[in-house]
Order: sequence, then structure tokens, then C-alpha cells
Amino acid sequence: MVNAENSEHTHPDTYVIGVDYGTLSGRAVVVRVADGAELAAAEHPYTHAVLDRALPDGTPLPPDWALQVPSDYIDVLRVAVPEALARSGVRPDQVVGIGTDFTACTVLPVLADGTPLCELPDLAGRPHAYVKLWRHHAAQAQADRITALAAARKEPWLRRYGGKISSEWEFAKALQLLEEDPELYELTERWIEAADWIVWRLSGTYVRNACTAGYKGQLQDGSYPSPDYLAALNPDFAGFVSDKLDQPIGQLGDRAGGLTAEAAAWTGLPEGIAVCVGNVDAHVTAPAATAVEPGRMVAIMGTSTCHVMSSDQWAEVPGMCGVVEGGILPGLWGYEAGQSGVGDIFGWFVRTGFPASYAEQAAALGRDPHEHLTALAAQQRVGQHGLIALDWQSGNRSVLVDHDLSGVLVGLTLSTRPEEIYRALLEATAFGTRTIIEAFETSGVPVRELIVAGGLMKNPLLMQIYADVTRLPLGVIDSTQGPALGSAMHAAVAAGVYPDIRAAAQAMAKARPAVYRPDPERAAAYDRLYAEYRLLHDYFGRGANEVMHRLRHLRAEASA
Amino acid sequence: MVNAENSEHTHPDTYVIGVDYGTLSGRAVVVRVADGAELAAAEHPYTHAVLDRALPDGTPLPPDWALQVPSDYIDVLRVAVPEALARSGVRPDQVVGIGTDFTACTVLPVLADGTPLCELPDLAGRPHAYVKLWRHHAAQAQADRITALAAARKEPWLRRYGGKISSEWEFAKALQLLEEDPELYELTERWIEAADWIVWRLSGTYVRNACTAGYKGQLQDGSYPSPDYLAALNPDFAGFVSDKLDQPIGQLGDRAGGLTAEAAAWTGLPEGIAVCVGNVDAHVTAPAATAVEPGRMVAIMGTSTCHVMSSDQWAEVPGMCGVVEGGILPGLWGYEAGQSGVGDIFGWFVRTGFPASYAEQAAALGRDPHEHLTALAAQQRVGQHGLIALDWQSGNRSVLVDHDLSGVLVGLTLSTRPEEIYRALLEATAFGTRTIIEAFETSGVPVRELIVAGGLMKNPLLMQIYADVTRLPLGVIDSTQGPALGSAMHAAVAAGVYPDIRAAAQAMAKARPAVYRPDPERAAAYDRLYAEYRLLHDYFGRGANEVMHRLRHLRAEASA
Repeated sequence: MVNAENSEHTHPDTYVIGVDYGTLSGRAVVVRVADGAELAAAEHPYTHAVLDRALPDGTPLPPDWALQVPSDYIDVLRVAVPEALARSGVRPDQVVGIGTDFTACTVLPVLADGTPLCELPDLAGRPHAYVKLWRHHAAQAQADRITALAAARKEPWLRRYGGKISSEWEFAKALQLLEEDPELYELTERWIEAADWIVWRLSGTYVRNACTAGYKGQLQDGSYPSPDYLAALNPDFAGFVSDKLDQPIGQLGDRAGGLTAEAAAWTGLPEGIAVCVGNVDAHVTAPAATAVEPGRMVAIMGTSTCHVMSSDQWAEVPGMCGVVEGGILPGLWGYEAGQSGVGDIFGWFVRTGFPASYAEQAAALGRDPHEHLTALAAQQRVGQHGLIALDWQSGNRSVLVDHDLSGVLVGLTLSTRPEEIYRALLEATAFGTRTIIEAFETSGVPVRELIVAGGLMKNPLLMQIYADVTRLPLGVIDSTQGPALGSAMHAAVAAGVYPDIRAAAQAMAKARPAVYRPDPERAAAYDRLYAEYRLLHDYFGRGANEVMHRLRHLRAEASA
Repeated sequence: MVNAENSEHTHPDTYVIGVDYGTLSGRAVVVRVADGAELAAAEHPYTHAVLDRALPDGTPLPPDWALQVPSDYIDVLRVAVPEALARSGVRPDQVVGIGTDFTACTVLPVLADGTPLCELPDLAGRPHAYVKLWRHHAAQAQADRITALAAARKEPWLRRYGGKISSEWEFAKALQLLEEDPELYELTERWIEAADWIVWRLSGTYVRNACTAGYKGQLQDGSYPSPDYLAALNPDFAGFVSDKLDQPIGQLGDRAGGLTAEAAAWTGLPEGIAVCVGNVDAHVTAPAATAVEPGRMVAIMGTSTCHVMSSDQWAEVPGMCGVVEGGILPGLWGYEAGQSGVGDIFGWFVRTGFPASYAEQAAALGRDPHEHLTALAAQQRVGQHGLIALDWQSGNRSVLVDHDLSGVLVGLTLSTRPEEIYRALLEATAFGTRTIIEAFETSGVPVRELIVAGGLMKNPLLMQIYADVTRLPLGVIDSTQGPALGSAMHAAVAAGVYPDIRAAAQAMAKARPAVYRPDPERAAAYDRLYAEYRLLHDYFGRGANEVMHRLRHLRAEASA
């Protein structure tokens, strides 16, 4: 355990708040700056969760949409922060700062004063007025054009993103807005990451954080894509950066401003304490999990997985999400890759593939569906289910960067049981991670160790599968609130308690290394299954059979 | 409706019994010979159903095994026949004959007196002593060798079976017995179809029926595969035909003998009435469904589907199950093709993919799971689910003849719902039927019309999908007991009431033609989905990617 030794004597009664905005809820944690001890946490689910079938007023949404309601984020400040504080026993005046992290790219259109368009009464029935959640995948057509044009023009920034721009990011989602609801695009005064919007609401200042600006906003070496390039995409898009996007950049750990009176009233925290610039859930977790050295990859495994790793060298890694100088830690190249669906896939399976007889048995044993399926799946030997799956139910972020891909199951028989499919899905996500690791290795960026954070680390079968499939020692963060801890660490830096995030990590970060080690026999069996995975991965994902794209096209036609 | 006109005056009070032995139960029907009227029916489920995990004593079974217990068949005679008779109000002395049909190839090892080996106390714990059900798929390795050797030696009979011998048939299953339990093979005095065994028990005479002898026993033009050929497969197999298989052949509709005193006591029928030679459920259904002309294909759709059709011309149809002269109707070439899994696949899905929330909703609406999923699936437009499935959960009988293939689902997303997968599975089986029809058409054997019999004909969505996918008018048999009706018709022939099965069909057969007609718009959309099916069919089924075979191999290794 990397941890503090004597800083508890320096800051015995000083605390920070970390708030982690996830896909379905926000979590607040009260953390002692001396040693990272988490005194209390509280969670508040978003009232509207994810809008993927209809707006709150019933307006139906097309396939692949995923929206959120920004007032749900404010509710987290009103409910979860005071609750965590009350549980911790910490007095508000002992809190010196608050830091936040968010899913990304989660982005919304606002007025110049920060008012979300969806809060204007006239616009509440317009889908494009809402927050587009990271997993809004309806801008694939725009993303394809963004990539193709950049490739044709040899735009230098393209290779910083593995050669492909995701439909999840700021430009694709903005271009979709422009092309599908130009009137609303016109009304949009700022196109802002939710990560920055919440900091604006806390501090009264709009500071754009360096992390999302680089990874999701294509800001590289101080420049965005040029007006020239944007005009070639769509003449009306030429002024997008200057009119709606550009904003002073705040570095990770910087102080965005002091807590406003309004936000102090919401949270019960003292007015004026440090509010840290925004950050991304995955990236903020890396230092929380002690990943302050090259080669130590952190996988934040929840609904989706983000892989973040810092390195002292730059390389072009095909299909990674992005590389940003100082994107995770100052002075290192920060790499990001990801899998769009992981826990989401297991959740989908439990919703759709968990029969009543299993539900009864699980209830009788006092297990939740995931625990029950995991317990049954753990009894199987590698390959015994005869299945191979592709983990693309939510598309593929790395290394194919194609959200029009979809999930596959091969090997079904009349004796295939739910726990066997469940295990095949767990394994498929591990194969997805191995594909990413191999892309790094092949590009000359070595991966020596995996550290897992996020909700899925509590599944020991899944962790062991990842160790066996990747043949890497696998550690876990020693916190159930990794991102919130990371946000709290950044808040401590913003409050001036530590000079930088490395110093904060030295004192506050927590991980147990190599808790799971690969078993040679299982690893050898997985090598064979992985070979099948890669064969199908390339067949369905690299153009040999474009069936997934055609099915999606047919689905859109039939739904129209 | 093709039906009787005046024969009711000739045979006003004469009745026959048809008994249909299915996969899970036997059904007896009391039929009036004058017009085919079904007065009453009764069903008796097999006590041991299908043994696919363990023997009754707990001995575990390897994957792909499917066994039955022969005494379960006798119980049908004891229970269902008297029950149907009692319900019908017909007096036993009004019954002039009994006919039976069976699943095939369902085959068992017996002593020279017909005693099943599994009924010998010492052998009750030996898997190979039991009946091997049609869908016992563990003899694929033997089937592959049977085919390869026949191809290498240019055995003339091979092309009568579409160029491939199925693992389901008599020789593959017998060779598996020999090679896995040679001692038991030695004790086997007759290797007999269950279709003939039950007739033996009814009449006291072992007559081998022409239908299974031709389709499942490779008897062509009066000859079985030669001892020479068999010796090349395995030296100990050389004498198989002469020692254990060969037996006088009875033509369909022939009288095997008179009902024995023992069988009369079981059934409550008069001793000495005509017992018809055995027959196969699918083949016996063809005349019951009025298919006595070329081009009229009957699809018997239940757990699996059999396609039977007669034609005045012989052709080599790739991947069909077999062509036998007089195999269905005297004087015509009888063609058989099939899909190993149809209703079985839908049943598997309901067992494994029907969530508790759906079960509650279905119960509230008073629907069984299939009705509920069908009602939800019927609301979708063609292609709206974005899915394509391969219907190989039970392997592929036609046209690939490979039971080591397995099921596939492509196009899964986080919003995919159970009713969408269910619909994709319904459609996949329709694509499988279209593949078979196209194989006939391409070989110069035209298919003009489909008539459906079997339990699945009661699903109107499924029927409409089949009409739309095949672009053929689709009729349905006008009986819920098609095979039993066909068996009863053959019993009427055996009893001498009619001179031949055509005359019996003229009086007793019942079908409503073209109840479902293809819709041009849906058919056009299905053409696009079918193209995707064929692409995946050929990719996974014709050697481009042997992943299914490798997965099965890995599964067997891991299970060992």
C-alpha cells in the first residue's frame, strides 16, 4: 500500500470533498487530506436516470440516443454532499475544498450564463436541448465524416486519437445538433462538458478543464481543429470553436474559484472554499490508484471501462481514445482507451436473460442476480460453455472506434444455460481489454501491471478472468469510491494542501498490487478462446462482413 | 379441403387408431375411416422424457447425448390408447386397425427376442444400452468418417443422401456404440428402429419398415453399404448389416401382423386386428396433409422440422436428408430434408431468456411465455430488432448436415429485448427453411406450395413469417394430430379398408391450402435479412471459420 507516513501530523483535522458523477448517480465522499481516509460517503441516484426511449414529456427518442437532465446533477450537491458530511461527523469548517469528476464526453448546450437549453420552457420537448450522455451513439455518421475528412486532409491531430474520432465526443455530438436541429444550434451559446458545467455552478466561473479539452475536444498543442477544416465538414460549422467552444483552460488540480453562496447553501459547505477544475472519472482515478508511474494501467470498470495510463513517451497507438500531454499527470503523456460497454452488458443480460426460475433460486440463496450468475459461472472450467462472445452491445470504443458495431454470441446450443452466457460475456470484456493492451504493446508502450477500480472490482471471478486472459498481475484500488477519492485528492491540491497531485498521491492514494495473478493453465486455455475472439473481432469489425452496419441501417429504416 | 364424399356410407361405423410417438410424449387418436373424422385423442408424456444429463440411476452423460427409456413407449399404449377410446365413445369391436409413427432415427440395441438391453439389470447403468433419440448428436465423429470414406470410395448411395450421412442415423449411432462400448455392441443382437420395435411389441413380428430402412438405414435399390466398406470403417463393423440390421422389409401401409393378446390387454383393443408396419412421424403426415402430388412440400414443425415432398423425378439435392423410392408414397421419389432445431430453439429461449418481469406480465395477461413473446414480437416491423440469428442450437441437418454447428446471434445492443431475440429466432428458422427450398429448386425439384403440420402451426406470426420469407403460399393441415391421423390412414390401408394410401388420402386427408400468403413489402425486407443469413450461414457453416468446431472441441476437453 502506497500511503502517507507523517502528513497526518501536518493536517490532522483538514478534509476535502470529492464528488463523482457517474452514469446513474452521483457519489460524495468526505476524505481526510492527511492520509486519504474516507470518513463517509453518500449516493444520490439521478431522478431521470438515462433518457433513451423518451423525453420526460413523452417525446420519443430514436435508437442510440442517451440523454440526461442537468438538474439531476444539482440534486447530488443538495442531497449527497450534506448527507456524506453529516455521516462523517466532520464539521463544515474543517472542509477546505471540493473536487468533482464526471463521465465524459457528456456535453450540453447552454446560454452564455450557463442555463441549459432544456430548462427553457419552450425547449423542454426538443431532444437536442438535453445533455448528451457519453453513451449517446447517434452521431456516428458525423463522427465518420470527421475522421474521413481529417484523414483526407492529413490533419496532424488525428493520430493523437488513434486515427479515429469517436461519435461520443464534442465535435460529433455538436455537428449532429447542428445538422438535425439547426435552430437549437443557433440558440446554443456555449457547448460545454457537464464536467465543467458543474464546476461553473459551484464556483461561478466557467473554466474548461485540460483533460476533456484534450481528450474529447481535440485540443492538441494549444489548437483546436481549424475553421477551415470545420467549414469543409459543414459551412455552418466553421465558427463552432470560436463561437461556442473556446474558453480559458484550467489544469487538473487548479483552483477554478471559491464556492459561491448559492452552492454553499446547497451543500452546507463554507462559502469561498476551493473548487477544483473539472476532471473525468477515469483520469482522476489513476493517481487515486497509485498509478503515477509509466506502465501501470488503471482500468476503471463500471458500466463501461476506461483504461488510463501515463508514459514518458509518445506513440501512435491504433484505436486508442487519445493521448494528451499532461492529460492525467503533469509532465507525462496521458493515454486513454476504453470499452463502451462492460457492466452495462452484464446489466443488460440480467434484465433480459435472467429467467424466473433463476430469480427464485437467487432469492432463496440471498444473492442478487449478478452474484448468483457469478457463483454458477465460477463452477465452470475455461471453455466448458463452448461459447464465444463479442462485447459490442454498446459499440466498440477501442481499438475499432465504431459505435455501430453490436454484440455477438457464437456457440449456443439447446443446453446453453444463462450462467454460461454470462460467463462468456465476462470473458468477452476481458478479451476486449487484452486487445487494447496488445495495441499498446505493439506500438511500443509497455503495459506491466493492471490496477482495477470501479464497481466491477468487487467480482472476484471477473478479476481472476482478467488476470488469466491478460497474463498480467492485477491489483485493485483500496477504495470503493476511487473517482471520488481522486477528486478529493485534486481538491486538496486546489486548496493548496499539497503542491501537486504526485505529492497528494504519495499521501492519499490507496491500492493493493497483484491481488490476482494469472494461472498458467487457465491462461493457456484462454489463449485459444482469445484467438477465436480476435478472428471474429476482425471479421465483424474490420470490414470483411459489414453485416452489423447493414442491420443497424435496416433497423433505422424500419423504425422510421 | 380434399375430403371424402360417399365412403362414409360404405364404412359408417369403422374406426382405426393412430399412435404418434413424439419426442416427449405419445398421442393416440381414434379416427373414422369413412371421412377421417377424429373422434377423440389422448396424450401420455414419457416418464423419463429425454435423458440428456444423466441416466435414471444418476450416471452422468457427456454433452450431445440424448437417450430415452423404451418402457415409456409401452406406457403410451397402456394409457393413451384406452383413454382416447373411452373418450371417443367408440366400442373396441368397431376398431379394425392400429398404425404407429415414430421420431427417427430413434434406435435401440435389443436381444433377439426384442428385449431392450437397458432392461437387463446388469446393463441399466450403461448409457449405450438405452434408446438413442433422434437428437442424440454424439456420433458426429463417426458420421464424418462414414461420409468421408463413402466419398473416397465413390459409394453410389452417398448421393441419395445429399452427399452427407448424418450423425443422427443408424450407422453412425451403431458405430459409436461399437467404438465406445464394444462389449455392449457384442451383446446387441438387433439394432432396431423404435418405429419397428413398437410394431414388434404390438404384433409379435419384427418387420423393418421401408421408410426408415431407406432414409436412416441407407438401404437403396435393395442393398445396404457393403461389408467391404464397413470393414474399412472399422474391421469389427464388417458384419453389422448381416448380424444385427438386416430384416425383411415391410412397405408403408402393409399389415405387419395381428394385435397380440398382450397388446390387446394393454390397449383394450380386440386381439388380431391389423397392426400396420412402422412409419416416421414426418413421412406419415404428408398424405394426411393431402400432399399426394409433386411440388407440395409438407413441413412438420415441432421441436424440429421435417420437410417431406414427393416428386416424379430423381435429383441430387445437396444436403437433403435422403431420397427414397416409395419412401413416402408408392411410385414417387420421396424427398426428406430437415432442421434439427425449431420449436426446441424457441423452448430453449423461453427456459433461458424469459425474465421474471416478463413471466409476471404474461401471467397477468393469461398468456403462456410463447404467446406473450409472440404477441410482443408481432408489434415489430421487419428488421426493426436489428438482429440476425443462425438457427443451429441443435446443429444443422439440411443443407449443411453438421451437428457440431451451433447457434449465433448478431446485432445485440443494450436495448435488445427478449421479444426481439425471440422474433429473430423465429425468422432464423424460416431462413433455414428457405435455404432448403432453394436447394431443391436449384437442383431442379420445384417447390410450389408449403403445407405446415405440427404444433407450431398454431402460431400465426410464425406462419406469416414463413410465407413472407419463402414467398410461397402456406397452407396448414386441418388436424392438430397430423402424424396420428396419417398413422390411422395407414392402419385403414393395412386393415384392407382402402386399397392404397392415395385412396385413403382421398377420403381421410385434411388441409386448408394457402391460409397465409406472402406480403410483398415484408418479403422484400426479408430478402435483405436472408442475404445476411446466407452470408453468415456460409461463413460459419462451410469452412471459412471453423470456430464452432473448435469451440465444441474445447468444450469436450474442458468437460472431460
